[in-house]
Amino acid sequence: MGNTVRFGISLDEKLLESFDQLIEQKSYMNRSEAIRDLIRASLVEERLGSENQQAVGTVTLVYNHHVRDLSDKLTDHQHSHHHQIISALHIHLDAHNCLEVLVVRGKVREIKKIAHELISVKGVKHGRLVMTTTGDDL
Amino acid sequence: MGNTVRFGISLDEKLLESFDQLIEQKSYMNRSEAIRDLIRASLVEERLGSENQQAVGTVTLVYNHHVRDLSDKLTDHQHSHHHQIISALHIHLDAHNCLEVLVVRGKVREIKKIAHELISVKGVKHGRLVMTTTGDDL
Amino acid sequence: MGNTVRFGISLDEKLLESFDQLIEQKSYMNRSEAIRDLIRASLVEERLGSENQQAVGTVTLVYNHHVRDLSDKLTDHQHSHHHQIISALHIHLDAHNCLEVLVVRGKVREIKKIAHELISVKGVKHGRLVMTTTGDDL
Amino acid sequence: MGNTVRFGISLDEKLLESFDQLIEQKSYMNRSEAIRDLIRASLVEERLGSENQQAVGTVTLVYNHHVRDLSDKLTDHQHSHHHQIISALHIHLDAHNCLEVLVVRGKVREIKKIAHELISVKGVKHGRLVMTTTGDDL
Repeated sequence: MGNTVRFGISLDEKLLESFDQLIEQKSYMNRSEAIRDLIRASLVEERLGSENQQAVGTVTLVYNHHVRDLSDKLTDHQHSHHHQIISALHIHLDAHNCLEVLVVRGKVREIKKIAHELISVKGVKHGRLVMTTTGDDL
Repeated sequence: MGNTVRFGISLDEKLLESFDQLIEQKSYMNRSEAIRDLIRASLVEERLGSENQQAVGTVTLVYNHHVRDLSDKLTDHQHSHHHQIISALHIHLDAHNCLEVLVVRGKVREIKKIAHELISVKGVKHGRLVMTTTGDDL
Repeated sequence: MGNTVRFGISLDEKLLESFDQLIEQKSYMNRSEAIRDLIRASLVEERLGSENQQAVGTVTLVYNHHVRDLSDKLTDHQHSHHHQIISALHIHLDAHNCLEVLVVRGKVREIKKIAHELISVKGVKHGRLVMTTTGDDL
Repeated sequence: MGNTVRFGISLDEKLLESFDQLIEQKSYMNRSEAIRDLIRASLVEERLGSENQQAVGTVTLVYNHHVRDLSDKLTDHQHSHHHQIISALHIHLDAHNCLEVLVVRGKVREIKKIAHELISVKGVKHGRLVMTTTGDDL
């Protein structure tokens, strides 16, 4: 983190009122923090558009653990990408359903490929990938 | 539009440098305008989350006009919603394919319903709905 | 359009019931048409992920036409991209606000760039880009 | 899981070829599994549109653990929602940056509110919420 700088922005009064309501509703402490979040989110969105960007992804999978060989297949996939899949969290949703969150680190392209492989495994009911920054550039 | 007010925000120097690069790349004239756009976009996003909010939608449809009865069906749908569908633009993409953009005004819920009806018509190859503000609250 | 082929898919009975409810709600005539739409949408999504893919975009802009020079600036932008911006539709939303939908054809990368330029013009309250297929590959 | 049923769908030959390429690229074993995934994803998307739907969310946060009081604040937030936040995974991205994934269970509305509260804490650089099914209806 470098130095903090300060600058002014001008805004229509009514627009500012609406924004103040929104940031209260979203629990922000003040305008600066809310605007910094908008700025960081726009930077992250832009960077994740590039396939070679280093990023971190979380892959959320919901599956039925009774499906034959499913857990083994998921574990195999994870081990074959052990350089990228750095951690996993397992939740027992009910007697049948599991949720697994895998944290994947690498280039945007690699993260997407690994997510597709995991989501396409037979027995996985639903899968979602979300990507974020590695944090060192923000 | 009311009065213009001015306030200051503080930011890490490196974050500001990255943001300045992004706003140049996105062709913004200055920081204020870029931040106003982020603020307005966050307000629009929040409001469109509410099904009863008044909004404007554009429905983009790509279809093959050779498909029997398709143009008639699309026209019928539009007329049965003539209070909401306020205008249409037609583009001849090539000898077979047409693109049609319909502008729909109403509650978020109604706009979604009309979009689903149009996109589901047989022969429509692809359809997308995008919603925006009516402008009077921004 | 080539020949029509037919194949079978197997599905859990309860999942099929839920899907049948969804396709009725979305106004599809039958399962085949609903599934074809899902297939086409997944293909379009995949292709639009590639920056060099030919595509069609619609840029929806909401702006206050009283803002000095705004209409002129938007028109200038459009003329400087007249090879890509093939058509425009203008709607008078109320006494102050206008909605303009521009249809842009070109590579995904070019369409995004043009959309950014238009959305960033001072006085544009909100802008959205949505992309679709040119139709010849579906 | 109920009984498995089978039905046929008809498709243009060229569209099927394109789809077969896509499902190979996405590592699906066969068409049935790929289509079941599209069907389940469309059901989940529809249901998550309703604010009262039971769901599971994963909130991914990236933050600098050197920021004063940040870890304490995040822990406080988590404990005040201990009925909904069922688990957390912590990753050390580098000497400064942490990634935390929280699994939140509840109504769509509650999950969004908790995610906003966490993402808006000062020092959180980036946050993303993704929601999925509890699995019992798919």
